[in-house]
Amino acid sequence: MSKPAIKKVVLAYSGGLDTSIILKWLQTEYGAEVITFTADLGQGEELEPARAKALAAGVKPENIFIEDVREEFVRDFVFPMFRANTVYEGQYLLGTSIARPLIAQKQIEIARKMGADAVSHGSTGKGNDQVRYEVAYYALEPDIHVIAPWREWDFKSREALLEFAEQHQIQIAKDKRGEAPFSVDANLLHSSSEGKVLEDPAVEAPEFVYMRTIAPEDAPDKATVFTMDFEKGDPTAIDGVKMSPATLLTKLNELGYANGVGRLDLVENRYVGMKSRGVYETPGGTILLAAHRGIESITLDRGSMHLKDELMPRYAELIYNGFWFTPEREMLQAAIDHSQAMVNGQVTVKLYKGNTTIIGRTSPYSLYDQDLVTFEEGKVAYDHNDASGFIKLNALRLRVAAKRDKRVKG
Amino acid sequence: MSKPAIKKVVLAYSGGLDTSIILKWLQTEYGAEVITFTADLGQGEELEPARAKALAAGVKPENIFIEDVREEFVRDFVFPMFRANTVYEGQYLLGTSIARPLIAQKQIEIARKMGADAVSHGSTGKGNDQVRYEVAYYALEPDIHVIAPWREWDFKSREALLEFAEQHQIQIAKDKRGEAPFSVDANLLHSSSEGKVLEDPAVEAPEFVYMRTIAPEDAPDKATVFTMDFEKGDPTAIDGVKMSPATLLTKLNELGYANGVGRLDLVENRYVGMKSRGVYETPGGTILLAAHRGIESITLDRGSMHLKDELMPRYAELIYNGFWFTPEREMLQAAIDHSQAMVNGQVTVKLYKGNTTIIGRTSPYSLYDQDLVTFEEGKVAYDHNDASGFIKLNALRLRVAAKRDKRVKG
Amino acid sequence: MSKPAIKKVVLAYSGGLDTSIILKWLQTEYGAEVITFTADLGQGEELEPARAKALAAGVKPENIFIEDVREEFVRDFVFPMFRANTVYEGQYLLGTSIARPLIAQKQIEIARKMGADAVSHGSTGKGNDQVRYEVAYYALEPDIHVIAPWREWDFKSREALLEFAEQHQIQIAKDKRGEAPFSVDANLLHSSSEGKVLEDPAVEAPEFVYMRTIAPEDAPDKATVFTMDFEKGDPTAIDGVKMSPATLLTKLNELGYANGVGRLDLVENRYVGMKSRGVYETPGGTILLAAHRGIESITLDRGSMHLKDELMPRYAELIYNGFWFTPEREMLQAAIDHSQAMVNGQVTVKLYKGNTTIIGRTSPYSLYDQDLVTFEEGKVAYDHNDASGFIKLNALRLRVAAKRDKRVKG
Amino acid sequence: MSKPAIKKVVLAYSGGLDTSIILKWLQTEYGAEVITFTADLGQGEELEPARAKALAAGVKPENIFIEDVREEFVRDFVFPMFRANTVYEGQYLLGTSIARPLIAQKQIEIARKMGADAVSHGSTGKGNDQVRYEVAYYALEPDIHVIAPWREWDFKSREALLEFAEQHQIQIAKDKRGEAPFSVDANLLHSSSEGKVLEDPAVEAPEFVYMRTIAPEDAPDKATVFTMDFEKGDPTAIDGVKMSPATLLTKLNELGYANGVGRLDLVENRYVGMKSRGVYETPGGTILLAAHRGIESITLDRGSMHLKDELMPRYAELIYNGFWFTPEREMLQAAIDHSQAMVNGQVTVKLYKGNTTIIGRTSPYSLYDQDLVTFEEGKVAYDHNDASGFIKLNALRLRVAAKRDKRVKG
Repeated sequence: MSKPAIKKVVLAYSGGLDTSIILKWLQTEYGAEVITFTADLGQGEELEPARAKALAAGVKPENIFIEDVREEFVRDFVFPMFRANTVYEGQYLLGTSIARPLIAQKQIEIARKMGADAVSHGSTGKGNDQVRYEVAYYALEPDIHVIAPWREWDFKSREALLEFAEQHQIQIAKDKRGEAPFSVDANLLHSSSEGKVLEDPAVEAPEFVYMRTIAPEDAPDKATVFTMDFEKGDPTAIDGVKMSPATLLTKLNELGYANGVGRLDLVENRYVGMKSRGVYETPGGTILLAAHRGIESITLDRGSMHLKDELMPRYAELIYNGFWFTPEREMLQAAIDHSQAMVNGQVTVKLYKGNTTIIGRTSPYSLYDQDLVTFEEGKVAYDHNDASGFIKLNALRLRVAAKRDKRVKG
Repeated sequence: MSKPAIKKVVLAYSGGLDTSIILKWLQTEYGAEVITFTADLGQGEELEPARAKALAAGVKPENIFIEDVREEFVRDFVFPMFRANTVYEGQYLLGTSIARPLIAQKQIEIARKMGADAVSHGSTGKGNDQVRYEVAYYALEPDIHVIAPWREWDFKSREALLEFAEQHQIQIAKDKRGEAPFSVDANLLHSSSEGKVLEDPAVEAPEFVYMRTIAPEDAPDKATVFTMDFEKGDPTAIDGVKMSPATLLTKLNELGYANGVGRLDLVENRYVGMKSRGVYETPGGTILLAAHRGIESITLDRGSMHLKDELMPRYAELIYNGFWFTPEREMLQAAIDHSQAMVNGQVTVKLYKGNTTIIGRTSPYSLYDQDLVTFEEGKVAYDHNDASGFIKLNALRLRVAAKRDKRVKG
Repeated sequence: MSKPAIKKVVLAYSGGLDTSIILKWLQTEYGAEVITFTADLGQGEELEPARAKALAAGVKPENIFIEDVREEFVRDFVFPMFRANTVYEGQYLLGTSIARPLIAQKQIEIARKMGADAVSHGSTGKGNDQVRYEVAYYALEPDIHVIAPWREWDFKSREALLEFAEQHQIQIAKDKRGEAPFSVDANLLHSSSEGKVLEDPAVEAPEFVYMRTIAPEDAPDKATVFTMDFEKGDPTAIDGVKMSPATLLTKLNELGYANGVGRLDLVENRYVGMKSRGVYETPGGTILLAAHRGIESITLDRGSMHLKDELMPRYAELIYNGFWFTPEREMLQAAIDHSQAMVNGQVTVKLYKGNTTIIGRTSPYSLYDQDLVTFEEGKVAYDHNDASGFIKLNALRLRVAAKRDKRVKG
Repeated sequence: MSKPAIKKVVLAYSGGLDTSIILKWLQTEYGAEVITFTADLGQGEELEPARAKALAAGVKPENIFIEDVREEFVRDFVFPMFRANTVYEGQYLLGTSIARPLIAQKQIEIARKMGADAVSHGSTGKGNDQVRYEVAYYALEPDIHVIAPWREWDFKSREALLEFAEQHQIQIAKDKRGEAPFSVDANLLHSSSEGKVLEDPAVEAPEFVYMRTIAPEDAPDKATVFTMDFEKGDPTAIDGVKMSPATLLTKLNELGYANGVGRLDLVENRYVGMKSRGVYETPGGTILLAAHRGIESITLDRGSMHLKDELMPRYAELIYNGFWFTPEREMLQAAIDHSQAMVNGQVTVKLYKGNTTIIGRTSPYSLYDQDLVTFEEGKVAYDHNDASGFIKLNALRLRVAAKRDKRVKG
């Protein structure tokens, strides 16, 4: 099919080789004016080189957008997600999934501001990220045109790509000539690695894929203990020091890194239909999940907690699949946020060679009542005899059914 | 209220002080003939002393039932539960909960055989276990009479209890004179500790409460690596050696013990309405959960896995609350078991100072398809263009909604 | 057990025989000062006789509270519930269940204002209403004392009750001497009938139990057609005439009554454990449910609708069981209410001899897009080819599984 | 893209104009040998004309498959679905959705038998049916080639289609020349109508679209009353006369037809992303749903019933979306079927001018216990005092939370 006429396109631009090729391809194949958006999500890379590269590629200075979105990312995406104790398929903390909607949202905002008619991203045609980007684009700006170069272009091999790069004077770092031994995504919440050396799920991930954590074996022999404060379900302080969301997560990452906390090696089910193997490192997130469960354990009513636990897998699936900007995710968020009003207090965390343990919890909002639970008969309103009636009526339907079963089975 | 006339009562009898007092109390207060049932669930205690004590208390030899139910426990209760990756409130592996229905079932079988009209247990009036026992009793034998001594008797203090024991020549071990610093339940799946020194959730659990695991700090500096084989979702071999269910779980417990694996310190919500703090040790179960997730990750279809994840919290709640012998638990089990038909294969497990990591998975039944997932365009039936249509139709409703929102919001 | 000392008790007082006996019994048995609360919930009875009776029983004038709560009932309880399309066990519209929390809330408010230390109600020990009242009392005022006379007193028979009434000069209407052929509860949402002549579920309910509807057979031969307007999920007008919530529901009841709409004869599962048979008449509610589904069908996104449908049974169960004032019900409500922001528009309703049919829906907020759905290829963004990719990727996991199955099954 | 080489293709062939054009198109465009499959699903049309037309089109006699699958359809698809009380979006009985997997399954069986490498169907690119067919094809035969002519061919208009038909001597019934005022699907469970005259959801469906029911207004003034027997959740007899599944559903359809039962006019959400308006007539199914709920109401335990109600929306969505042959649908089916073991007994049904009412239910397997529910204190094991404990412990967590709220809110 022939390409539609595109005037201006906002590209999610990292400054790396792949998106640099895409930038040039959009210019040459679409003849489009390219606007670049480069976000600091905490991936740990300098952003200014991206500006230089964009300029070198002929992008107008006013078309280059570079933004530090770390606080926004943690406050509006990561923390809301952790309020739900979200894990995908029992394990994955959704570090990649949760970053995509933010990038897409920023691209759409820029597109509106700059009068662009298209957006573009560098995700491949086999992964989840293309879905996450594009579903978000469409949900926010229904008539936007989406260009997914990896699904459109004709390069048959990595060689062909590199040839195109050379033709267009795109710098190729030496170590990018050969093929990378695995592919990486990173932001303030996590890093993920997949592909190549990780493709056989029977084979242990090599130590060199890990970048956000040292090995538990290399971690100190002495535990690290600290406190975390929570307000309305979000962490606000470490060891009593108030911190902004991104600062706090950065600090947790450091603590996790140093103690070998947050490694995950798993096979997951992609939304596009196949299984893939990934290695994730989520040092701060792993601590946050445990700490949040800890503070909830004393401040959250059983009804709320169990309902949250039942809703969570659905909520996680929505985020994983890219449905952040949807009415149903917002409905679930409304329910989850409602539950967090009194999730305030402090937990004590112990990190030791890969382990995260909550060793203490305290809160002025605590629902834990030592008088109720003590083995001694207390002054409080617990009458042992109540248990008899409780059990009897809970069992009544089962007794009736058991009698029926006896009757009909003879 | 006056006590009903009871002829024979089957008591869940451990041989310990508390159930020895109950035994005597049933004889003296109810004038009932007591039948004792003592099960070897893997709690790690000799059972023959229970026989001697029962005889000493005047129980007829033919009324003393001692049974090793370890295989049955693991095969028919523990493994079915682990097929669902069951955790209560995100953390607890239900080691106590899952043992109660088996004991109750055995008591009812003995009651039928011996013509007993009542059953009794030693659980207190504030806990979950009374519910688990009694709901199971009623579900299996709807007209059985249930005697819950802790809810019925008049002893106002531990001293009064001990006085009764002395009056009736019940042996009191020296260390039972004073109050225990915490209360313990144990079986092949786990040990639990609660009460006294653990009652303040702000205070770290002291090392001396742990009995099934050494501290991660004390575990070897070198990882332990082994394989586990699965058939239909149940583990069948360790390092290629086929084992019976209980033997296998015992072996996993040893491995976990030595590597400091399976400790859990949490505050949970009891079914009877209050929060309580417990310390659980589930060394083998912790490994099993990780390993089962590992083998499922390559053999279970996404649809099954996500449905399982959504059903699990409900299933866990049913077991925790004592509703094992119910139609709804059986319905969920039918669904879960259906999913496990091809959960066969092998995982490689690495234990290191408290950490359990799955470092490899392999199966002739694998759904992982390296050709599908590889970054290279493969021979297989994945066309990148399919992703466009997939995304477009998944986003269609959101685009329509976004247009509506623009329209009505002006 | 001896009765606790109660100073003042707020009684949910209908003025009928039963609550009049309770009033007197509270005075004589508890020696308590009784405060009566009589609500106009739309049950269709005069309230002033209740005042006269209370005065005659010695209640101080300042202790008599009579309140018209119809608007509050419909606005804050009925409409929120209908936003969820709530039905219990597939059929019951929860007319009794939804009224109890409001009465309980009012009693607690009066208790606080008047310094009362107890509340009381006239529900029996076998029903759901005792639970609904008391759970609400405790949730709102945790230390309130609850008196449930039907569970406490010693009257062994209806005769004994009547004797007590006569002793205390309580008027007994002639038709109350004998036993009522069935028991009734009524409010603006519905009437319920159960007991006696209805106790055999094999026998058709006699026509004389119906009070809120004429029989479909007696309804007009010509359909009644009208429009209903909705705003944010709540009905606001009939045939273009704006009405307050209670006025609107009253009007719907009249329309339903005249057309034989809203009868339900069913066997339901009570929370206390047994099955019971009831006949419900919910004329206005039946129309409202259909109309609300109708307006949602064009204004609600699929994601929201399906999530609502999945949450509804749990939500209904919470209301039925009496858990209105709970965090989990509020969480669900937050999710449901979030979904209703654009549930605005108009439906056309046709009533005919028991049938309620939605024959038209229109809304400026409609998500229905005739261009999208038409068989003609349109100008809109629907490309038939997208469906291929959509299907392919949705089927991918199933194809992989089918290949696996072929492989392993040989 | 160029067409793949196809040797033999199994076409779902109705004998109507559209699939006759497809047949010819497959022959001419693909040069494929076409095998036709024509099923009697109870759509109410003669099948032999399909044979004549296929022969006329050059299909070899041995390549023409005509099969009466009505019993299979009802027994293996319709009844299992009704065991779950399945409705989509609160209303739709899934009459079209449930037929597609059977047709797909038969096509695949024929493809295997005849060595065909492709299958084809006549569903358009905007509807759900293409998904249902193709997902089923792929799930059963992962490497089958699927040809969806409506998505592939170049006909730009109905005129172009008719021109192609004329070129190839395909008979065009006179009334097919002009465009049909709406489109129809029918089988033994239902008929559906959509498109054209129904496209504006604000406008009432005209009476002439209805084909399976007379209008309630035209139904007899006297009710029709009959009994239905159930075994394991499936209906087995009407008025005591045992019938095969298809015979029974046929009989129910007649009863429903004559009494104006089973009409539904709604706007639904298609899986492919848009809303569409349809008119469905499901006379027998509407009766069956009510009757099944009726028999369940006395034979199904509350736990099973509520779990079923919670699972149902997901189960309905799976069927609607075309995921019948999936592990997750089978998991849910296993749970549902488990619940039906004792859903045996008889209900009495009353039909009157569009209304279906269950007026009686009886079963030797009944869980309804008149002794338990009666207002008279009975001989049975219900102690009113049990309710106190039941309520107290159910409210305990709420009391603790209410105290906390008071404490922290000051």
